[in-house]
Amino acid sequence: MSERGDEFDTADRGLFDGIVARGPVRDAVGDRARLAAMLDVEIALARAQAQVGMIPTAAAEAIADACRPEAFDVGALGRAAAETANPVVAIVEVLSARLDRSAAAHLHHGATSQDILDTSLMLVVRRALDLVLLDLEGAADAAARLADIHRATLIAGRTLLQQALPTTFGAKAAGWLAGLDAASADLRDVRRSALAAQLGGAVGTLAAFGDSGTRVLAAFAAELDLAEPDLPWHAERTRIARLAGALGTVSVAIGKPALDVLLLAQTEIAEVREGTPGRGRSSTLPQKHNPVAAVAARACAAQVPGLVATLLFAGVGEHERAAGSWHAEWQPLAELLRSVGSAAAWLRDCLEHLEVDPVRMEANLERSGGLLLAERVAAALTPALGRAAAARLLERAAAEAVESDHPLGDVLAGLPAVSKHLDRAALGVLLDPRGYLGSVDSFVDRALATHAARLSAYPDVIR
Amino acid sequence: MSERGDEFDTADRGLFDGIVARGPVRDAVGDRARLAAMLDVEIALARAQAQVGMIPTAAAEAIADACRPEAFDVGALGRAAAETANPVVAIVEVLSARLDRSAAAHLHHGATSQDILDTSLMLVVRRALDLVLLDLEGAADAAARLADIHRATLIAGRTLLQQALPTTFGAKAAGWLAGLDAASADLRDVRRSALAAQLGGAVGTLAAFGDSGTRVLAAFAAELDLAEPDLPWHAERTRIARLAGALGTVSVAIGKPALDVLLLAQTEIAEVREGTPGRGRSSTLPQKHNPVAAVAARACAAQVPGLVATLLFAGVGEHERAAGSWHAEWQPLAELLRSVGSAAAWLRDCLEHLEVDPVRMEANLERSGGLLLAERVAAALTPALGRAAAARLLERAAAEAVESDHPLGDVLAGLPAVSKHLDRAALGVLLDPRGYLGSVDSFVDRALATHAARLSAYPDVIR
Amino acid sequence: MSERGDEFDTADRGLFDGIVARGPVRDAVGDRARLAAMLDVEIALARAQAQVGMIPTAAAEAIADACRPEAFDVGALGRAAAETANPVVAIVEVLSARLDRSAAAHLHHGATSQDILDTSLMLVVRRALDLVLLDLEGAADAAARLADIHRATLIAGRTLLQQALPTTFGAKAAGWLAGLDAASADLRDVRRSALAAQLGGAVGTLAAFGDSGTRVLAAFAAELDLAEPDLPWHAERTRIARLAGALGTVSVAIGKPALDVLLLAQTEIAEVREGTPGRGRSSTLPQKHNPVAAVAARACAAQVPGLVATLLFAGVGEHERAAGSWHAEWQPLAELLRSVGSAAAWLRDCLEHLEVDPVRMEANLERSGGLLLAERVAAALTPALGRAAAARLLERAAAEAVESDHPLGDVLAGLPAVSKHLDRAALGVLLDPRGYLGSVDSFVDRALATHAARLSAYPDVIR
Amino acid sequence: MSERGDEFDTADRGLFDGIVARGPVRDAVGDRARLAAMLDVEIALARAQAQVGMIPTAAAEAIADACRPEAFDVGALGRAAAETANPVVAIVEVLSARLDRSAAAHLHHGATSQDILDTSLMLVVRRALDLVLLDLEGAADAAARLADIHRATLIAGRTLLQQALPTTFGAKAAGWLAGLDAASADLRDVRRSALAAQLGGAVGTLAAFGDSGTRVLAAFAAELDLAEPDLPWHAERTRIARLAGALGTVSVAIGKPALDVLLLAQTEIAEVREGTPGRGRSSTLPQKHNPVAAVAARACAAQVPGLVATLLFAGVGEHERAAGSWHAEWQPLAELLRSVGSAAAWLRDCLEHLEVDPVRMEANLERSGGLLLAERVAAALTPALGRAAAARLLERAAAEAVESDHPLGDVLAGLPAVSKHLDRAALGVLLDPRGYLGSVDSFVDRALATHAARLSAYPDVIR
Repeated sequence: MSERGDEFDTADRGLFDGIVARGPVRDAVGDRARLAAMLDVEIALARAQAQVGMIPTAAAEAIADACRPEAFDVGALGRAAAETANPVVAIVEVLSARLDRSAAAHLHHGATSQDILDTSLMLVVRRALDLVLLDLEGAADAAARLADIHRATLIAGRTLLQQALPTTFGAKAAGWLAGLDAASADLRDVRRSALAAQLGGAVGTLAAFGDSGTRVLAAFAAELDLAEPDLPWHAERTRIARLAGALGTVSVAIGKPALDVLLLAQTEIAEVREGTPGRGRSSTLPQKHNPVAAVAARACAAQVPGLVATLLFAGVGEHERAAGSWHAEWQPLAELLRSVGSAAAWLRDCLEHLEVDPVRMEANLERSGGLLLAERVAAALTPALGRAAAARLLERAAAEAVESDHPLGDVLAGLPAVSKHLDRAALGVLLDPRGYLGSVDSFVDRALATHAARLSAYPDVIR
Repeated sequence: MSERGDEFDTADRGLFDGIVARGPVRDAVGDRARLAAMLDVEIALARAQAQVGMIPTAAAEAIADACRPEAFDVGALGRAAAETANPVVAIVEVLSARLDRSAAAHLHHGATSQDILDTSLMLVVRRALDLVLLDLEGAADAAARLADIHRATLIAGRTLLQQALPTTFGAKAAGWLAGLDAASADLRDVRRSALAAQLGGAVGTLAAFGDSGTRVLAAFAAELDLAEPDLPWHAERTRIARLAGALGTVSVAIGKPALDVLLLAQTEIAEVREGTPGRGRSSTLPQKHNPVAAVAARACAAQVPGLVATLLFAGVGEHERAAGSWHAEWQPLAELLRSVGSAAAWLRDCLEHLEVDPVRMEANLERSGGLLLAERVAAALTPALGRAAAARLLERAAAEAVESDHPLGDVLAGLPAVSKHLDRAALGVLLDPRGYLGSVDSFVDRALATHAARLSAYPDVIR
Repeated sequence: MSERGDEFDTADRGLFDGIVARGPVRDAVGDRARLAAMLDVEIALARAQAQVGMIPTAAAEAIADACRPEAFDVGALGRAAAETANPVVAIVEVLSARLDRSAAAHLHHGATSQDILDTSLMLVVRRALDLVLLDLEGAADAAARLADIHRATLIAGRTLLQQALPTTFGAKAAGWLAGLDAASADLRDVRRSALAAQLGGAVGTLAAFGDSGTRVLAAFAAELDLAEPDLPWHAERTRIARLAGALGTVSVAIGKPALDVLLLAQTEIAEVREGTPGRGRSSTLPQKHNPVAAVAARACAAQVPGLVATLLFAGVGEHERAAGSWHAEWQPLAELLRSVGSAAAWLRDCLEHLEVDPVRMEANLERSGGLLLAERVAAALTPALGRAAAARLLERAAAEAVESDHPLGDVLAGLPAVSKHLDRAALGVLLDPRGYLGSVDSFVDRALATHAARLSAYPDVIR
Repeated sequence: MSERGDEFDTADRGLFDGIVARGPVRDAVGDRARLAAMLDVEIALARAQAQVGMIPTAAAEAIADACRPEAFDVGALGRAAAETANPVVAIVEVLSARLDRSAAAHLHHGATSQDILDTSLMLVVRRALDLVLLDLEGAADAAARLADIHRATLIAGRTLLQQALPTTFGAKAAGWLAGLDAASADLRDVRRSALAAQLGGAVGTLAAFGDSGTRVLAAFAAELDLAEPDLPWHAERTRIARLAGALGTVSVAIGKPALDVLLLAQTEIAEVREGTPGRGRSSTLPQKHNPVAAVAARACAAQVPGLVATLLFAGVGEHERAAGSWHAEWQPLAELLRSVGSAAAWLRDCLEHLEVDPVRMEANLERSGGLLLAERVAAALTPALGRAAAARLLERAAAEAVESDHPLGDVLAGLPAVSKHLDRAALGVLLDPRGYLGSVDSFVDRALATHAARLSAYPDVIR
């Protein structure tokens, strides 16, 4: 059974969708896709019931024929649903009117509205997750390329927004990669294990199915290629919570590189710029390149935590079917998928077109004139001077370097206590940031290896 | 200047709007209303600049003429905005193309996109708040009527979902009323004080306005009947936080009566039912009246806290205009208004049509057979028996009443230790719940008086 | 290396801990346990460095000797930490003062405070998760017992808080079980895969470790039995997000049965009561059994979604180490573990001592006098009367039954249109709820089988 | 009646309190202060009942004598409360044991635990708000000083983290001031109007008070100087929601300047540094000044939105007293006050000691070599060249300036099309950022005037 969400891009965009609803997920969670998914579920129900002999095969096929989404007027359904507080009732009424009496009698048999809505939601989620994963893994690929290419590109490591010690831009990108890979692995796990068919009838007993209930459930889940749950989960919403949590993790993985790009792109730092052709440049302010993609990725990701909280709260519902909390899921879950999908699309765009300026990175690093490596010189002098004396010496030298605006190397070379132990060349070696990068190269290798392993573990990765 | 949000009800409803987007607020925060508000802001800007002589009056009027929302294709604007990541740029381009060159040169002069968007947002918010208040105060009126009519209607007071002591349904409704009145008073305060014009240019200096900046700002705010801020608030978002907090308070005030109605409407309790004609009744299950309005009100209110959190997080932005957190406000704020508006509409409907069953209320109260008043009998016996002995006696009597399924009065009347001090008649008085209602009548009066005072304080209340 | 969190129960309880900090998790995330974990991390660091030859083994053992948590004054450390804004600096200073100069020189070598704090956090989380799992799986066991024992106990299935169709209490408990099992499986997955050592030095390069960085990291992780990350994750917080999400899922799984118990324990329904000896009973109101454990479980679970949102927001931090968002994790993560642990302890208590009243369950179900099965009779009459006529007939009969307060069976038996097709006996069969339970028995079996499989998959389950 | 929260600073600090629990609010919401407040409430209740003649004056005074908080063992109470799930029961038991029988009989008469807890909470909140306001208004004062002193200090205005147009540091600080003033005005409003006494007895009827209920309530509120509510608000929590919202607004007002300080303090920008003596400086890295106060303020503020969401969710409770949601308020509300108080203390510290570097600000602004003012030159050339031609000319000149790394003024002066209309001097005037500041001076004046008006409106401001 095809998933038809992607057939219904209306091409129209809401006024504000430019930022918050970028990419195909918008349409995958849109009304037409949700309608199509509900119709797919009605078809699957009918066919499953036909398989076990509950209804005639001909009725099932008549129902399948009638479930053509393009034949529905979404606006009219919406108006009707506003009366019944539930789109399924309206859809079933329209379908009934289209079928002849004998087939109509078998439509939606024994199901409750929530069976249709929850199962269709799983189809919509699956389709949306595939689209999110496409962009998320695309963003990870872009981060992997940056990590690999720039494994030797020096950059100031910054803590609490202060330059601290040198690192490489490759290591920074490897950190982004690690987050993106972890988040998409988790999302794949959810896609594989948490998406289950829903079928229980009014109170989750499948009473109207006689003793065929579990067989119909199995056939129904198989029709839709969804997991078969042990029992109906109308009011057992850990699946939704797990999904929400995984999307929350994705928002963290996306927000992090977006924030770093914004900070690196600051006018005064200017170590990267977004290079997507035709975007973010200003005709009157040529020095200005608005990092639009990073801004938008961050804006979308920032909508996630609140929506996750809403879904967790809504996860606790009364008895066999909840009095409000289930209804409270509909809008936030669609928003959540849309926001994460949009964030992933923006980040991929941002990273795939990121222009990196290694010269500027090194220049910014050198601004501190060797101060970042003071701790290394102190360590080198410790055997000769003792730990405390070496520390005091470097403290004074660094203060002098800052005040006099001279490189630390020059100040140190002028101190007899230093020159006795370290000549200019030795000092130069100690103050060379390239020699003080520790394990960054291994770290980049490890992150890339994990990324490569993910690719081979998912040969079906959609790219 | 008219607010034109209400002219644009598209009549179409999203598939799920039946629950989560009921009432006129949906359209008031919709794309057409937001477009209309942005155009109103461009008009006000041009007219304010004309007033202080910055641009010719004729140009301002030409701009005003061009700003007819019905002449715009929202879908096309949306597609264009998806390119520029900002609907204002697209709108200004369309307007420019419509104006002759001389007027076009004066369009949008010196403003930044956020000036237009933030100010238009304030117009949209004001219109939406008026609509929310209409239903919120309608709901409060309905609660006031219930409080007044049922001031003597006995009902079990329940704590931790256990019957505890008697109270009246009027007192319960007065509690709802107090919450609704407090929330709408707070919302009116926000409407009056927190909605301000936004005008600052790129970095909030109004540099392009020369020395006319503050005069234009004053005229601009006056044109739109918005407060004039001390200075631009592009990245100072306490106004949005205050608004979000007030809407959060409303969600609490709405959620409470909705939850109580759901609990009172339980099959086993059945003290109220929703009486809206044609809704919630089931043809096959005539005993079942789904309390649809309360369910929906609760579902809508449940979406609020997460959105408030999102807006609070988004309130902290960088420097003169934020790199993402401002964009993160757009969607959640619209959702917040829509959810609160929908919740208010549902609650009003619920309370205006609530069918109250005083007989059932009293019957449920009597189930406990006087047990609720055991503490009162103990108090009456204390002078004679001492506190501890009286308590022990009642404890034993109550246990016997529960076990034997006899009314507590009968058990007590059979105990010599009791009958020596209290005859049947005295026991009857003590066990009459009507005599143990404390100050409920005063409490109802006080809540009603506060409500009446609100009505006279707001002669402009829209009803 | 032992985890010493459990040795430090101070026995003192905060005034409000009775509800919100029940169970051992309170102490496992308390200051003494966190201090002990930080000291364990310093020991592991020294030993790992000794293993690869970076520092002398004797120094490592001297450090290990000094790291006795009982020798520290937490209050004094706290005061010192308030000066340095970081407890690690204060701890290292105290340790240094205790060590002789040669060992002190090797203490905390090359590490940054966040290395110690993050790694110790992982130890604290692991210990806390073990304790959470103990109670969570205990609660699941209790749910499993209820599901098994009550697989044939009739109860009204309720949707939107209205009686809808019959089900069994066993099926209800099986639903609780399914949620608890899913949540604990997810939590075990997090425990196994998301908890990793943290070691990177100031900017995540391990620069001060020369070329021994990755070997020290491997040895360090092995010492503590934590996963070895590909690279430092100071500002890559998907691990924390994943953990938070899983705890969010647990809160949903716990909140659901707690809510159901509260609803079933209502005075008017009274189908269950909490039976923990000595709790929740009132001497003056013997009919009142406050369901304290369910109330508290729900209160604790309700604190989770907001904390999850906080941690997701805090997951996005700047560059190599964040400027505030890392610090923003400390308190919410401790609160989150404490709340979930307390919720799990309360729910386990609640379910292990739950008193079920099957007689009352059936009596409540019978209140509707067969109305719940009207749809079944209609289905039985459909072959003879046609679908529409059968539905109309039942609708009228049900309305009459409600109005006249007679059982539906009696009303139906009096209608010739019915008695022609169905005699008293046949009607009795149709109106017997035991015959209309669909697949509930299979559903219970399936949930129990999954639970049993979990037990055998985790032979190390701590019970 | 004194509020005794401030007498109980234990001087001990939790290990992590250095960041997240700075300032006196920590103790004001601590267990000793909460205990003291509960005892104050018991005293007020007894005295109010004595006033209306419900209990003997001597009993009230005996109760008041017994309510000395220093005589209580908080740890022991906590252990007892863990049994009863409620600290009030334990406190009343201890008090009863201390009183002679005749006074004990009048203790806590007719009140429910929630009466004591809610009212004591209001006392704790009031005390905490006073402390928050002290630091919040201290921070506002510091911002006002910065705005005034630096009203002419040039700085780059930055949008989306890109330099855009010049502004002044005074205007930036005035923006901070406006947010802080708005937030503290709102908080004062809450303090004045939302804090009310709670007294209702078990179900809010004051049944045990006979017909004296409302008189006792009035006297009780007067004793504690709290507002007298129309009726009990056990399950009507808009007061808590309003408070939470206002604290949320404060977090936005604090987070904003903290973020700006962090960004301005970046090594590469270095326009401000935190100057608190002895904090944030590193002996080995003298160029590094960790902006500890801003980091901590931000970390504390970041904990607020999630807690606000929790309190909004918890605001909806069942019937007369809620089954869990009330208990869910306790911990989050204390955390919320502590976090906001700590954030305010940190921000005040940060702003009071902020070292501003005007030279560096101007140097950073000049980096763009006049590019920021390109739009101004274009406007000056428009009368002569036409709008489009002027724009194109500047676009080319700016591009050349960027590529050649020459100041824009030099490039322009070399173009005949420019020099024909603007000589060097005229160009110099146009490119002087001081001449392109629009209304910033007025904006600063207006923000300062509002601040001054607040001071005079609150002569009782605690400073």
